[in-house]
Amino acid sequence: MKFKPLGARALVQMIEREQTTASGIVLPDTAKEKPQTAKVVAVGNGKTDKDGNTVAVEVSEGDVIVFARYSGTEIKLEGEDYMILDADDILGVVED
Amino acid sequence: MKFKPLGARALVQMIEREQTTASGIVLPDTAKEKPQTAKVVAVGNGKTDKDGNTVAVEVSEGDVIVFARYSGTEIKLEGEDYMILDADDILGVVED
Amino acid sequence: MKFKPLGARALVQMIEREQTTASGIVLPDTAKEKPQTAKVVAVGNGKTDKDGNTVAVEVSEGDVIVFARYSGTEIKLEGEDYMILDADDILGVVED
Amino acid sequence: MKFKPLGARALVQMIEREQTTASGIVLPDTAKEKPQTAKVVAVGNGKTDKDGNTVAVEVSEGDVIVFARYSGTEIKLEGEDYMILDADDILGVVED
Amino acid sequence: MKFKPLGARALVQMIEREQTTASGIVLPDTAKEKPQTAKVVAVGNGKTDKDGNTVAVEVSEGDVIVFARYSGTEIKLEGEDYMILDADDILGVVED
Amino acid sequence: MKFKPLGARALVQMIEREQTTASGIVLPDTAKEKPQTAKVVAVGNGKTDKDGNTVAVEVSEGDVIVFARYSGTEIKLEGEDYMILDADDILGVVED
Amino acid sequence: MKFKPLGARALVQMIEREQTTASGIVLPDTAKEKPQTAKVVAVGNGKTDKDGNTVAVEVSEGDVIVFARYSGTEIKLEGEDYMILDADDILGVVED
Repeated sequence: MKFKPLGARALVQMIEREQTTASGIVLPDTAKEKPQTAKVVAVGNGKTDKDGNTVAVEVSEGDVIVFARYSGTEIKLEGEDYMILDADDILGVVED
Repeated sequence: MKFKPLGARALVQMIEREQTTASGIVLPDTAKEKPQTAKVVAVGNGKTDKDGNTVAVEVSEGDVIVFARYSGTEIKLEGEDYMILDADDILGVVED
Repeated sequence: MKFKPLGARALVQMIEREQTTASGIVLPDTAKEKPQTAKVVAVGNGKTDKDGNTVAVEVSEGDVIVFARYSGTEIKLEGEDYMILDADDILGVVED
Repeated sequence: MKFKPLGARALVQMIEREQTTASGIVLPDTAKEKPQTAKVVAVGNGKTDKDGNTVAVEVSEGDVIVFARYSGTEIKLEGEDYMILDADDILGVVED
Repeated sequence: MKFKPLGARALVQMIEREQTTASGIVLPDTAKEKPQTAKVVAVGNGKTDKDGNTVAVEVSEGDVIVFARYSGTEIKLEGEDYMILDADDILGVVED
Repeated sequence: MKFKPLGARALVQMIEREQTTASGIVLPDTAKEKPQTAKVVAVGNGKTDKDGNTVAVEVSEGDVIVFARYSGTEIKLEGEDYMILDADDILGVVED
Repeated sequence: MKFKPLGARALVQMIEREQTTASGIVLPDTAKEKPQTAKVVAVGNGKTDKDGNTVAVEVSEGDVIVFARYSGTEIKLEGEDYMILDADDILGVVED
């Protein structure tokens, strides 16, 4: 099964990372802040501007992105958790 | 009887699926989350942009779509439950 | 007496239908949901777009339409109840 | 004294009508719904669109109109009550 | 000292009028409604539209105007009370 | 140190004036209304309109202006209090 | 690791400065106001206007900026605290 986001949206999958405090202690799940980093899985065609041209989404499949808190819609596809984000809620791309 | 959505709207029918937990237990109806997946039954002509051109809705009859929580208007046609969605509330299409 | 809606509006008259439950019981008035189906009685000239062209309302006199909950203004004309709807609140047309 | 509404506005005067119930009883003032019907007394020049053209108000002096509930500003001119309405809050014209 | 309003704004001075009830009784200050009539003292240059043209304010110095309730900013200039109004909150002009 | 406001903004410094009541009594600080008069210290380049042209801010360094209540952001630069105002919140200019 | 802000956004790092009161007392952390001054670390490509042209962000890497209270999203990159700001929330640039 595949999922194709519509318009200026992206399907992303959360990146769970071990969180270590400044003093080196690994935090249990309940003490973690909700992660805001995710990997892009699929991207919509972008939005159509008023002249009929399509403005592409700025991220691509595989990009690691940071997104705005309280944004996105969680969905479950074949038992895995994903999030559908509006392109405007993607704040930036983490480059290695 | 047929129903023709106006403008950038779609008439959809909810897809009820048996929900099974990670541990394999089938959930009764009351424990289910409200499904957000639906099949497109009819599509409006789209919206007219400021130059008088019509921007078609991105989904077609038969598409299985995921829609935003708390969106849409429920209606009953000939005893069956449907939902009328704004095209902007359709987040993406599930492709097999 | 006639009533001419202004702009992108329609005058409609509610359609009261006998409501029968799945098990065949006719519901009394107090148990009914407020109907959302109405017949179009008169239509405004539509709205003027930014180039001065008029965009007509998509429905015509006699159409049976479904409208959004909590929309419209109720008025009484010669003792009968009508509703004035914004064209944007008309969700679709029921075709026989 | 005369009053000239500015822009897309109209000065109207409420039409008080004797209200009779279905069973023929004339209602006292306190039992009446606030009337929503008014006669147009003066009309502004309309609004200027983005190309500098003026879009006239759709009603004229003498028209009997129905307006949206909770709209308008009440003013008193030479001891009489009037209302200033935005053209957008005028729902339609009653034609005899 | 002079005051020049910026953009689509006007500086006005409230007109306090003796208020007499229908039965001829002059009301003391505390029983009066706040007046909504004012005299225009100075007018801004208007707003610049998207083509760079200036759209003038529709009122001129000396006009007696009626303004929307709860609009405007009160200021004191050389001990006298004035109000700065957005042009959109000026409902109309009283002509003698 | 200098501060350059960005876009359609101005850096202003409040003008504290001795406030004297109608009866000639000089008010202590706590009885004063917060002043709404300020002197312009620096001005941004203005905002870019949709055709790429820059629309300059209407005030200049040294102007004494009146601004809308509850607008602006207070900042401290080298121990002195300033306020950064959006150009839209500057109501007018006091001319001597 | 590098972070590339998308669109009209900037990645900034807060500037913590010793705060000294007027009377020369250095304030402990808890008595400090949250600083609103930051150094720009990375800048997005700007926003695309309706003609498809890109409008660059007005600040550059290394600029010391003042930003609006309650704006921005805090993120942690490699153990250090940063903030992602919308370009519209950057009020001005501090020049030495």
